[in-house]
Amino acid sequence: MVTTWANERDLHLDLAAPGGVRAALEAALRDAVRTGRLAPGLLLPPSRTLAADLGVARNTVADAYGQLVAEGWLVARQGSGTRVADRAPAVEAAVAPGAEAAPPRYDLRPGSPDVAAFPRTAWLACARRALATAPSEAFGYGDPRGRPELRAALAGYLARARGVRATPDRIVVCSGFVQGIGLLCQALLTRGARTLATEAYGVSAHRDVVAASGLAMRPLPVDAGGADVGLVGDAGGVLLTPAHQFPLGAALAPARRTAAVEWAADTGGVVIEDDYDGEFRYDRQPVAAMQALAPEQVVYAGTASKSLAPGLRLAWLVLPGALLDPVVDAKRRADAQTGTLDQLTLAEFITSAGYDRQIRRRRLAYRRRRDRLLAALPGVRVTGIAAGLHAVLSLPRDLTEAAAVARGASHGLALDGLDNYAAAPGQHAPALVVGYGTPPDHAYTSALARLAAVLAPTRY
Amino acid sequence: MVTTWANERDLHLDLAAPGGVRAALEAALRDAVRTGRLAPGLLLPPSRTLAADLGVARNTVADAYGQLVAEGWLVARQGSGTRVADRAPAVEAAVAPGAEAAPPRYDLRPGSPDVAAFPRTAWLACARRALATAPSEAFGYGDPRGRPELRAALAGYLARARGVRATPDRIVVCSGFVQGIGLLCQALLTRGARTLATEAYGVSAHRDVVAASGLAMRPLPVDAGGADVGLVGDAGGVLLTPAHQFPLGAALAPARRTAAVEWAADTGGVVIEDDYDGEFRYDRQPVAAMQALAPEQVVYAGTASKSLAPGLRLAWLVLPGALLDPVVDAKRRADAQTGTLDQLTLAEFITSAGYDRQIRRRRLAYRRRRDRLLAALPGVRVTGIAAGLHAVLSLPRDLTEAAAVARGASHGLALDGLDNYAAAPGQHAPALVVGYGTPPDHAYTSALARLAAVLAPTRY
Repeated sequence: MVTTWANERDLHLDLAAPGGVRAALEAALRDAVRTGRLAPGLLLPPSRTLAADLGVARNTVADAYGQLVAEGWLVARQGSGTRVADRAPAVEAAVAPGAEAAPPRYDLRPGSPDVAAFPRTAWLACARRALATAPSEAFGYGDPRGRPELRAALAGYLARARGVRATPDRIVVCSGFVQGIGLLCQALLTRGARTLATEAYGVSAHRDVVAASGLAMRPLPVDAGGADVGLVGDAGGVLLTPAHQFPLGAALAPARRTAAVEWAADTGGVVIEDDYDGEFRYDRQPVAAMQALAPEQVVYAGTASKSLAPGLRLAWLVLPGALLDPVVDAKRRADAQTGTLDQLTLAEFITSAGYDRQIRRRRLAYRRRRDRLLAALPGVRVTGIAAGLHAVLSLPRDLTEAAAVARGASHGLALDGLDNYAAAPGQHAPALVVGYGTPPDHAYTSALARLAAVLAPTRY
Repeated sequence: MVTTWANERDLHLDLAAPGGVRAALEAALRDAVRTGRLAPGLLLPPSRTLAADLGVARNTVADAYGQLVAEGWLVARQGSGTRVADRAPAVEAAVAPGAEAAPPRYDLRPGSPDVAAFPRTAWLACARRALATAPSEAFGYGDPRGRPELRAALAGYLARARGVRATPDRIVVCSGFVQGIGLLCQALLTRGARTLATEAYGVSAHRDVVAASGLAMRPLPVDAGGADVGLVGDAGGVLLTPAHQFPLGAALAPARRTAAVEWAADTGGVVIEDDYDGEFRYDRQPVAAMQALAPEQVVYAGTASKSLAPGLRLAWLVLPGALLDPVVDAKRRADAQTGTLDQLTLAEFITSAGYDRQIRRRRLAYRRRRDRLLAALPGVRVTGIAAGLHAVLSLPRDLTEAAAVARGASHGLALDGLDNYAAAPGQHAPALVVGYGTPPDHAYTSALARLAAVLAPTRY
C-alpha cells in the first residue's frame, strides 16, 4: 500500500459506498476526528494534496472539508488551512449491557388486565376505517381536548354505561390517567389549592405525580365503606375510587358519596372520581358514577387501561366547567394533545359497539377468574371481590408480606404486598393484592396452583 | 291516564326499554332526582305501593331503590322509608354552542407539514404488521423510554441520516417535542438549574412550557449565524435549533457550535439541539447534528411532526448519560410511557425503509414549493430558505405585520407575523413567517397567488 496522509491516519474510504465519494470521505474524516485518530489542532493537508492522495477530484475534498467545518469537526481560518477543531474529544459512554432480572413466569400483581386479550383484529379493522375516513386535519395540530369523534363517542358511552353526565366539550382525552392526575393537580394549583386529599391506600405512581406537582397530600383512612371523606377538611380536592376502592375493594358508601359532593359544593373543592375499573362489576349492576350527582363538583376519570390495554395510554376526564380551561391549558403545555390515530380508532371501536362487546367478554372472563381464585384458596380470606381485576388476600398470621412475596418469587410468581399501596406502611394486617386479571388465560391455572402453594401454611 | 304517584311526577317509564324494567325504573328515578322533579327530602312511596302503581314486581322497585341509594341519589333510613337525598340539585351547565370562527381557506402559518400527504396506506400496512407481530407485553405497562423496537430503529436511523451518536438505551420516546421540553426542564431543575437560555425567536408554545416549569429564560439574540451562544453565561442549559433556526432560518455558525459545546463541557451545562426539520435541507447535504460533537453535553431532539404528522405526537430525545435518569423519572410521572401502537408502527415504517422514502418524497415536494414561493414573489426579500418548511418574508416599508396579517385574512389566508415568534416584540423589521409546507398540494397555487396579492404594495 502506498503510504499517503490518509493511509497513515487509517482513513477507511470506501469509494463505492452508497452516497458516493464525498459522503464516504466526510464519514471517514468525521470518524477519525471522533475517535481521536485526527487529534485536536492537527493541520489537515491542503485539499489539492489530499485529493491527489486519494485519487478524487479536488472539489470533492474541499466540499467535504466545508461540510465538516459547518458541522464543527474542523475549523478553517483564512490563510492558515484547515485544522481539527480544538476541543476535548467527546467521551464515549460505556453503556452497561442491560442486566435486568429475568421476569417472573407468572405475574399476579394488580394494575394490568390480561394484555394477551387485546382485540388485535378488531382494533386493526377500526384503525383501517379511521385511517380511511379521517379528515386531513386529524393529522395536524388540533384541539388539546382530543379528537371530536372520540369525545362524542365517549359522551354517549359514558352516559349509557356509567351514568356520567358528559358533553363532548367537557371531555379532555389524555395520555393515560397518570397524565390526567398531573393535569388536574396543575389545575387545582392555579385555583389556589395547596392540598389534595387521597385515599390512604392507592397507586404509588399516582402519589408520586401529586407530590411532584407540589400539592401536599392528606391521606384518608379507608374502611369497608371506602375512604373516610369526613376528613377532607380544607383540602382543595379529593381523589377517590368510588366504584371499587383501589386496592382494598370497597364501594364508597352512599352517605360518603353524598358527603363528598356536599363538601365540594360547600367549599368549592373538587372531587376526582377515578373510575379505573367501573365497567367490571360482578355481583350486581354497576354502581353509576357519582359524577352524575354533581357534574360541577366532580371530575369523572375513565381509562382504556383496564378495558383494553395500558399500552394504549388513553384516558379521559369529564370536567366541571370551572376546571375546563385550566386543564386544557395544562394539557396544551403537557403534550399539545394526545396522539390522534389511537383516538380515532377508539372512536370507531366505541361507535361500532366493539368496545361494549370487548367489555362484556372480559367481564365474563374476569368474573370466572375471580371465582376460580376463590375456589383455589378455600382457607384464605379474600376481599374486594365484587368488582375489578384484583382482590385482597389476608395472609396467615405467621407470614409477613415480604415473606409471602419472597416465597412467591421462589415459585416464579410476582406478588405485591398491600404495603406497596399504602401511604404509610405497616398500618394493616398482612395481605397480598392479587391481580387475577394479569396472566394470560393459558397461564392462569398454573399461577393459581402456585399461589395456593405459597399460601398453604402447613407446607412451610 | 290513571293518576298515580309515578304519573304525577312525570316518571317516564318505558317497560320495553333495553335493559328491562328495573333499569328503566332506575333511569326514570335518577332523571327525576337530577332534574328536580323529585325534590330533595321527598319521601318516596313504599316499594310495594310504587310496584302496584307501575304494575311491576315489588322486588324490582326495591332493587331500584337500593341501587339509587348506593349511588347517592336516595337515602334510606331504617324505619323512615326512602327519601330523595338532601343535597343541592346539580347545576346543569349551560354549554355555549361552539362559536368558533370559520377557518381560513388557506393556511400559510408555519409549524405543520402538509398533513394531506400523510402516507395513510403505508402507515396502515405497518400498523398491520406491528399488530400481528407485537408481543403481548407491548400492550401492557412498559419501559418509560418507549418500545425497544422503536428505540433500536431510531438509533440506526439517526446515526445514518443525522450523524447522531445514539444507542437505544439513551433514547426516550416522548409524546411530541412539547413534552420533551417539559421533561428536559424538569431534569434540569433536578440538577439545580435555574435558567434556560433560549433563542430570542422561537415557538411561543415552547416558551410557555419553559416558563411553566419554573425555569427563567435568557433570550439569545439571533443573527445570520444563528443564536449568539456567547451570552449563555451561567444558564443551566441552552435550547437551540442549529440546523435551521426557527423561524429565522440560519444554520448555527460552526464557531458557535463549537463554542456551545465547549461552554457545556466547561460548565456542566446542557445543549438541547431541537432538530425539528433537520431532514429537509435543500441547498446542500444536511448539516449533521451537533450532538455527535459531544454526546455527553448535547441532547438531540427529533420529531415525526414535520416528517410525518404532528397529530402522531411522536418525538425522541437522545440523552447524555447524566440526564437519562432524571428524564426517565419525569417521563414516568408525565404519562408513564408514550402509546405503544404508534411506536411499533413507526418502528416498522423506519425498518421497512418507508420513512426514508417518505422523507425523500416530501423533501422534493417542499423544495419545489419553496422554489415556487420564490418565483411568485420576485420583489420580496425571502430568507431562511435553505431548509425546512417555512421562510421569512420581509414586508414592504409601508406594511406592518398586523396589517399584512389582516390583509391576508381578507384574502382567506392565515398568516403569521414574525412578532408571534419573538421573545420580545418589535425588535425587527416587519416580516412574515410563511409556512409553505402547510397547504395541501391542490391549494398551493391559489395560496401563493393570494399571498402575492397581499404583498403587492401598489395594489393597495
